[in-house]
Amino acid sequence: MTGRIVIALDAMGGEHAPEIVVKGAAIAQQRFPQAEFLFYGVEERIRACLAKLPALAPRAIVHHTDEFITDDVKPSVALRGGRRSSMRLAIDAVASGEADCVVSAGNTGALMGMAKFALKMIPGIDRPAIASFFPTQRGESVMLDLGANVHCDSENLVQFALLGDVFSRTVLGIAEPSVGLLNVGAEEQKGHDAVRGAAVRLRGPGAPVHFHGFIEGDDIAKGTVDVVVTDGFTGNVALKTAEGTARLFAEFLRAAFTNSWSARFGYLFAYRSLAKLRKRMDPRRYNGAVFLGIQGICVKSHGSTDELGFANAIGVATDMAMNGFLDKVHEEVLQLAAAAAPDKTTAAL
Amino acid sequence: MTGRIVIALDAMGGEHAPEIVVKGAAIAQQRFPQAEFLFYGVEERIRACLAKLPALAPRAIVHHTDEFITDDVKPSVALRGGRRSSMRLAIDAVASGEADCVVSAGNTGALMGMAKFALKMIPGIDRPAIASFFPTQRGESVMLDLGANVHCDSENLVQFALLGDVFSRTVLGIAEPSVGLLNVGAEEQKGHDAVRGAAVRLRGPGAPVHFHGFIEGDDIAKGTVDVVVTDGFTGNVALKTAEGTARLFAEFLRAAFTNSWSARFGYLFAYRSLAKLRKRMDPRRYNGAVFLGIQGICVKSHGSTDELGFANAIGVATDMAMNGFLDKVHEEVLQLAAAAAPDKTTAAL
Repeated sequence: MTGRIVIALDAMGGEHAPEIVVKGAAIAQQRFPQAEFLFYGVEERIRACLAKLPALAPRAIVHHTDEFITDDVKPSVALRGGRRSSMRLAIDAVASGEADCVVSAGNTGALMGMAKFALKMIPGIDRPAIASFFPTQRGESVMLDLGANVHCDSENLVQFALLGDVFSRTVLGIAEPSVGLLNVGAEEQKGHDAVRGAAVRLRGPGAPVHFHGFIEGDDIAKGTVDVVVTDGFTGNVALKTAEGTARLFAEFLRAAFTNSWSARFGYLFAYRSLAKLRKRMDPRRYNGAVFLGIQGICVKSHGSTDELGFANAIGVATDMAMNGFLDKVHEEVLQLAAAAAPDKTTAAL
Repeated sequence: MTGRIVIALDAMGGEHAPEIVVKGAAIAQQRFPQAEFLFYGVEERIRACLAKLPALAPRAIVHHTDEFITDDVKPSVALRGGRRSSMRLAIDAVASGEADCVVSAGNTGALMGMAKFALKMIPGIDRPAIASFFPTQRGESVMLDLGANVHCDSENLVQFALLGDVFSRTVLGIAEPSVGLLNVGAEEQKGHDAVRGAAVRLRGPGAPVHFHGFIEGDDIAKGTVDVVVTDGFTGNVALKTAEGTARLFAEFLRAAFTNSWSARFGYLFAYRSLAKLRKRMDPRRYNGAVFLGIQGICVKSHGSTDELGFANAIGVATDMAMNGFLDKVHEEVLQLAAAAAPDKTTAAL
């Protein structure tokens, strides 16, 4: 797809809305000059932001609504009472075909609930998974599920492997991504039933992905595989543990550079190189958690990010839309079903 | 206990055995001058190491055996066939009361299997847990289980909370440790049945610990609590993810300091401060994973550590023995049982 691309934005989601949403769109527009933006939220406030961005204004359409979803609202309440909210209207734009994708920095549970309800699941995928990419020693990898499902069975994990594979291909441009299942050891007998069962399926004939095997927690940052598949409980803990460790290290590093005049002096000379390090680990660069498995492209931005982070989330959504993520998933699901069918016949003999 | 302390050592476990085991004992002896060491392994090789350590030699007794457990042996095989192995003889020294604790850098699964078999479980504790401490923004915390149990129910997690609490008090000297349950969110309804059930028990009357509540992955490095309790699957992934992330950061930092002459020059001035950072994050400092719940003190050292790391593992075992870890656990288990009893009566009304 090289032509028109329409991006629906929940202009009221996140701590610094609508400012960072509008400014983020302006940054994303530089990368995607053909993009058009639909903003949902308080018109007056959105217009005030747009007034300072003359290049973006002609490619922006504002849909006014006074309602928005706060962070403390439960998904079920948001779903029932939030039909006119900025979040829901932005999702509906994708459901009706008006927009190609939606991005929100609002309430994660509400966004997931509304997206599932309004966009429906992709036939053949039972549950949505949250995916995101992150820095590794080899470049960038993808991990899912990061928290949509506390419990996952083998079949869910196999489907996540398929979704992660297509996501890696369409967003990171990796031709044949390697997929690993997160476990407590590399040996076949390690782990619980769900990971062992999924491994059997992924090693078998007609497997939808290039399966590396089991990986362990330290393989995540090593970049041993392009796609890390796990249940939402483990994935959420792993993601946040990695974030916490990176912050601890940064904190210790800051302390090291300020605890003597000699170190401060050294810092001046190393400044430029350390700025590169900071950039490499910058969480804004990896902003944009994607809800995979849903019949529509929906990306969640971190709630406290700035315009640069929000622009990256828009970038993820736009890459998925432009590179035909949904069509590719449909294809893969059909192939998976076809591969599974003769297996079932054999089993019945 | 201020008097005699006897430490049994598997002199043949780990990549650099017996050298690092003997040298590690010599380092530990400086901290614990009253300690006596029982070495199990190939006498000739152990004696060759001891010959270079005149201060240690008079406090060392060598028990010869040719047999040892390799890293690729399954626990069940080690248990049946390894009765005369250096690992098993060292454990037996604790079982017979000859030694106060045992340390091995050998095969983890075999060590756990043998320790459970020869030392038995503490009455009232159903399963052993692997615990270790790690650096945080506030100092040091403890996490368990790190991999002994892939599946854990609420009762297991409550028992781990108790074990972690006593471990934190006896080894880190924290008077009233705060205990957190690792979960995907802080709210009561988050997570699966095991964590929610354990939280109800730990919030209730007669709870054995000072319960903080649920914590998330990023709270581990923040040091939000003194004791992090989780199942062995999640704990193993979290620990290894943290290790991998720290290594990634160190790798990026090294690259930053070598990618320009200016940065290299800066490094010279910051060297001393960065050495402190390295020391703070040094994995040898946190070496020594403890098998809690077993009727005896058994510490597993990392297989590839050096003498400094091994000495730290000995230190953990010795602290536990000297501060009466086992007696304190027995007391707590009795209190927990007493507190649970009236509850059951109430429930029966």
